[in-house]
Amino acid sequence: MGLCLLERYRHLLPLTDKTPVITLGEGQTPLVRSRHIGARAGCSELYFKLEGCNPTGSFKDRGMVMAIAKALEEGSQGIMCASTGNTSASAAAYGAYCGIQTIVVIPEGDVAKGKMAQAIAYGAHIVAIDGNFDQALSLVRSLTDKLPFTLVNSVNRYRLEGQKTAAFEIVDELGEPPDYLCIPVGNAGNITAYWKGFTEYKAKGLASFTPRMMGFQAEGASPIVKGHPISSPKTVASAIRIGNPASWKGALTARDESGGAIEIVTDDEIINAYRLLAREEGIFCEPASAASVAGLLKLAAKNLPLQDKRTVCVITGTGLKDPEMASQFAETPIKHLPADLKTLEEHLRSLAR
Amino acid sequence: MGLCLLERYRHLLPLTDKTPVITLGEGQTPLVRSRHIGARAGCSELYFKLEGCNPTGSFKDRGMVMAIAKALEEGSQGIMCASTGNTSASAAAYGAYCGIQTIVVIPEGDVAKGKMAQAIAYGAHIVAIDGNFDQALSLVRSLTDKLPFTLVNSVNRYRLEGQKTAAFEIVDELGEPPDYLCIPVGNAGNITAYWKGFTEYKAKGLASFTPRMMGFQAEGASPIVKGHPISSPKTVASAIRIGNPASWKGALTARDESGGAIEIVTDDEIINAYRLLAREEGIFCEPASAASVAGLLKLAAKNLPLQDKRTVCVITGTGLKDPEMASQFAETPIKHLPADLKTLEEHLRSLAR
Repeated sequence: MGLCLLERYRHLLPLTDKTPVITLGEGQTPLVRSRHIGARAGCSELYFKLEGCNPTGSFKDRGMVMAIAKALEEGSQGIMCASTGNTSASAAAYGAYCGIQTIVVIPEGDVAKGKMAQAIAYGAHIVAIDGNFDQALSLVRSLTDKLPFTLVNSVNRYRLEGQKTAAFEIVDELGEPPDYLCIPVGNAGNITAYWKGFTEYKAKGLASFTPRMMGFQAEGASPIVKGHPISSPKTVASAIRIGNPASWKGALTARDESGGAIEIVTDDEIINAYRLLAREEGIFCEPASAASVAGLLKLAAKNLPLQDKRTVCVITGTGLKDPEMASQFAETPIKHLPADLKTLEEHLRSLAR
Repeated sequence: MGLCLLERYRHLLPLTDKTPVITLGEGQTPLVRSRHIGARAGCSELYFKLEGCNPTGSFKDRGMVMAIAKALEEGSQGIMCASTGNTSASAAAYGAYCGIQTIVVIPEGDVAKGKMAQAIAYGAHIVAIDGNFDQALSLVRSLTDKLPFTLVNSVNRYRLEGQKTAAFEIVDELGEPPDYLCIPVGNAGNITAYWKGFTEYKAKGLASFTPRMMGFQAEGASPIVKGHPISSPKTVASAIRIGNPASWKGALTARDESGGAIEIVTDDEIINAYRLLAREEGIFCEPASAASVAGLLKLAAKNLPLQDKRTVCVITGTGLKDPEMASQFAETPIKHLPADLKTLEEHLRSLAR
């Protein structure tokens, strides 16, 4: 059998002899070379890291497998999080796999069944509270202090340990780090984790340099760029709709130590990149993922020299998480025709003209 | 860079020096060991091949990358298929990636936007005809005879060539083939392709035996088991709702040459397996995928000796393709509570009792 993520990077993860080695097939996601967007950006060597190919459809699985393995090692009876999206999906999957209970606390108003479909399928126990997201998070923090449950929101330090393995994989596959790493920034855990991964590889002599970390926040949810928390963050990209990031400091460290930048992209730029990714690269991602490509195109327009720079954009999750977006931003309406060969042939010939 | 699917198995695929090597990151999907269902089935070594981790979320990407590469080699201007599901999603993704036009013809009545979300996102040109699926398929066959477009429905022989690589991967990872391969049977292309893969590996001396092929059809869509086409196939598992399989003969050959079987599972058995996979293994799949596990459990109940048999169940696609199923078959309703620590604590303690 091939090695799983916890085995492959065991020497760089906080595992002990007592940590159970578990896997749902997370990690080893494709690094795909751009065929069209790289040319648009004047970037000769552009890759996309497809984290949507993880077992629950997002990068969260890398951190969750680590967090759950440690929770099991510590004898936890179950796991708990406040989340309406990718975190709850991933937590519930690993909870089910390991035979422990998963409790998901969500704000009453946010019970969109589509978003919760995975947590429901995996059999998580879902509690909707009469309050907002901050209250939900505060409640799970208090509850996990009192009960033998482990908190698996991003404040769980093992999450970032697992997530940093994506940086390892990129270096392992390319042979060296890229010059630029473009990544969406919401709660800022992922940019923090990638930076940790790149610096650890350099410290171990497994890479000779580190990339510039280029983070991108949505305009209506850009506390780090603005320098203060946003009380009502707004963006079409729900996975980065965060007003007060848990890993704020980590993001600043990544930016400053790497000689990188954290910048703003508008919702229009995100949607444009989301469509380009699907239509020109065959990559259907969740809107938040497209922020990395929106940012790259923005920097290219500002004449950031990308020509001979190897660049990786992190595509954090699959577009299947939010299929309504696809229909909403579709350009081509469905064409209705009679079931007649001649009519169809004429129609198709007219398309080619 | 790691090798892509077409490179890795080049010596076993119908590639020439002129076939372009393309990749969206298909293949190399996880083979995950069962933690709970194996025990239920009395099978000591059970694995799931997670084909939902392919870039468009289903096994179709393996065959599509091969079909599109050959279409490009042959100078085709575009690709065409009749499909409302995984085939159109995969075709549209590779069409977009390669910069050629994808035409999808669907029956008017089947325009469920959720199912078509991917094809729409990838920018396929979708034509809804005033007719049924058979008419749609017949029209694309005629159109691709007349126009410089390549038909990429499963009658395209390169599809099975690409799909057989999943069998290669299983043998490569386990070191030997499994004793049993359990697989859903709809159009029967996949069972045919796996059998081709296993027999080719044996012929090349890369495997010392071949597995027994255990195929499972949904009760209301079981033409191969019944021995005649079904005019109105019915099952909750839409991806195997096929009344007259294109690879009927291939399925019989796989069954007979391997000493295997093709059997029926009911929709209730499929839904039960679908729920078990999510709740006991953390695997959220599309309903059709669960037919392989439903079949395994059925054979176990009939005392097929599985104890020392290594078994692989093919999980053909991700559950995110059909999220409404998850909500529909959820057991646990969402619990609504006030945002109060004491109330939540009491509730969670009551769950543990």
